[in-house]
Amino acid sequence: MSTPPRATPAERIELAHGAGGRRMTELIDGLFKRHLSNAWLERGEDSAVLARPDGRIAATTDGYVIDPLVFPGGDIGSLAVHGTINDLAMAGARPFALTAGFILEEGLALAELDRIVASMAAAAVAAGVAVVGGDTKVVERGKGDGVFITTTGVGEIPPGVELGVERIAVGDVVVVSGTVGDHGVAVMSRRAGIAFETEIVSDSAPLHELVARMLQRVPGLHALRDPTRGGLAATLNEIAVARGVGITLRADRLPVRDGVNAACELLGLDPLHVANEGKLVAFCPPDAAEALLAAMRAHPLGRDAAVAGTVAAGPPGLVELETGFGGRRVVDWLAGDQLPRIC
Amino acid sequence: MSTPPRATPAERIELAHGAGGRRMTELIDGLFKRHLSNAWLERGEDSAVLARPDGRIAATTDGYVIDPLVFPGGDIGSLAVHGTINDLAMAGARPFALTAGFILEEGLALAELDRIVASMAAAAVAAGVAVVGGDTKVVERGKGDGVFITTTGVGEIPPGVELGVERIAVGDVVVVSGTVGDHGVAVMSRRAGIAFETEIVSDSAPLHELVARMLQRVPGLHALRDPTRGGLAATLNEIAVARGVGITLRADRLPVRDGVNAACELLGLDPLHVANEGKLVAFCPPDAAEALLAAMRAHPLGRDAAVAGTVAAGPPGLVELETGFGGRRVVDWLAGDQLPRIC
Repeated sequence: MSTPPRATPAERIELAHGAGGRRMTELIDGLFKRHLSNAWLERGEDSAVLARPDGRIAATTDGYVIDPLVFPGGDIGSLAVHGTINDLAMAGARPFALTAGFILEEGLALAELDRIVASMAAAAVAAGVAVVGGDTKVVERGKGDGVFITTTGVGEIPPGVELGVERIAVGDVVVVSGTVGDHGVAVMSRRAGIAFETEIVSDSAPLHELVARMLQRVPGLHALRDPTRGGLAATLNEIAVARGVGITLRADRLPVRDGVNAACELLGLDPLHVANEGKLVAFCPPDAAEALLAAMRAHPLGRDAAVAGTVAAGPPGLVELETGFGGRRVVDWLAGDQLPRIC
Repeated sequence: MSTPPRATPAERIELAHGAGGRRMTELIDGLFKRHLSNAWLERGEDSAVLARPDGRIAATTDGYVIDPLVFPGGDIGSLAVHGTINDLAMAGARPFALTAGFILEEGLALAELDRIVASMAAAAVAAGVAVVGGDTKVVERGKGDGVFITTTGVGEIPPGVELGVERIAVGDVVVVSGTVGDHGVAVMSRRAGIAFETEIVSDSAPLHELVARMLQRVPGLHALRDPTRGGLAATLNEIAVARGVGITLRADRLPVRDGVNAACELLGLDPLHVANEGKLVAFCPPDAAEALLAAMRAHPLGRDAAVAGTVAAGPPGLVELETGFGGRRVVDWLAGDQLPRIC
């Protein structure tokens, strides 16, 4: 249990906490600023003023509506930091500031919000990035669901870094940074109330330092993506369609935890469709693959990195999986809503 | 009526539209990109890559949960553009990119979303700023309320511009850019189903060009704020407390529309507590007030600008209103929830 917030005597969020008056200021000062304290928030202006960056700017926004708010390996607060840092990292950007917009439901326990904001603050400190601005809105009971967080990241792309799907070429090697499906299975098993022998823990983690190492060692890297919603299948399908190429994965090369495989079988899921929050997929020229793997494996978040596939001329727009027995199957993306509110 | 979206045969948002698969891509391509088309969105990367700015960066985030979604003078889409541009403008920043995170409720009519995104796009074009990135999440029916939008703005602060509450000094003149209370009354009257003889229309508008004119003419401006939630009363109280000064307003100098006064009387509101979305309050040294007023009145959004008060040594932390008969009353900020979901 964390210390109860000193913000206000009320124990739950009320509409007044979002009305722009004294109660809102109490909530912001007593809870948000207490955890996320920094010079920008203390200044209390409508905009945070940041230094002029050395390079181009990267900007990204992601809404977090995960259900449940707390899951094995994280919560919506840490996820909202990691997910947005990772979107910056995929552009090769060093995160330099985050902002967070909270939409709170009337009736939310302040103690729960306190834990979430504390977790967000801890994740930001661990990643070396500040939450420089934010906003709080309150909606009536039954018009929201506890907490939604929309996090925006602003980053700086070092001169010389050029990553993008348009650089992916036939012959490229597809490298994944570790096991797939951990986050989604951790959330789904908590949601379904299923306990496995070995608890599956979300892989939620900030990838910017891993990416910095990769770029240092292999500046000619073509593209990076983090396979979140829709899993590796959605990410690779998007790329196959966008580039008009085929992508072939090898089942025996794809790292998947036994527990994730078992849970997926039970839940009727394919690990390739399940969200990840601390994994990336990299596309690089074949002659750089060894150096890239070495750089990745030297970092804790890339320890299980593996070459999982290759980019081919065709069939264009198609992702295929080579199974162990010489067979092939098409890896489609999900059309339906098998995994709502996974992030 | 706008053209129905070509996104998908479905007429309403379904959970599948947020699941990261094919349906989400259809929604993004067929609706969001159709309206908000630009090079960054077309690129479809996790982060938008922007040029290196010439000055310092300003960043701001605001969530929009306004109820109803459409109101006289605007809708949640245009509001989400104006409100965020204005927060940048208050730092003296030229807006250079916006991002928008949508949280959609299952069951939302696609035609309604289409109108809102079209309105957002039109507001962005009119203001000369691009929505360079976004995100879409879907929550189950009864866990949201149609559409919530969280908009982040990134701006560029020209060298030499230094605005901030810490520069406000005793003797400063308080200038408002026009009538107060229009936005809140427009929304509340729509919500209460009240029709007035003269319809009150929201003042929702982007203030960055007005601010650019003001800074050009009066580079020594001390501070700018946009009195949104909580109205002018909340903004001035925050400043009075932060700077330990007293602020005196003169009732006869404060521009308020007759219709707003009448509606406030009927609704039991004080126009000073009512939100504005296209107004600003400026603090400047007394010898610059005339030049500032002239610059403001030359711009359509500052036509009704007026000196509404002054900053005094005390009583510290207090905002007072001088009434027409030589009386004074304290202008407190709202503690309660008189005006929920006004922006």
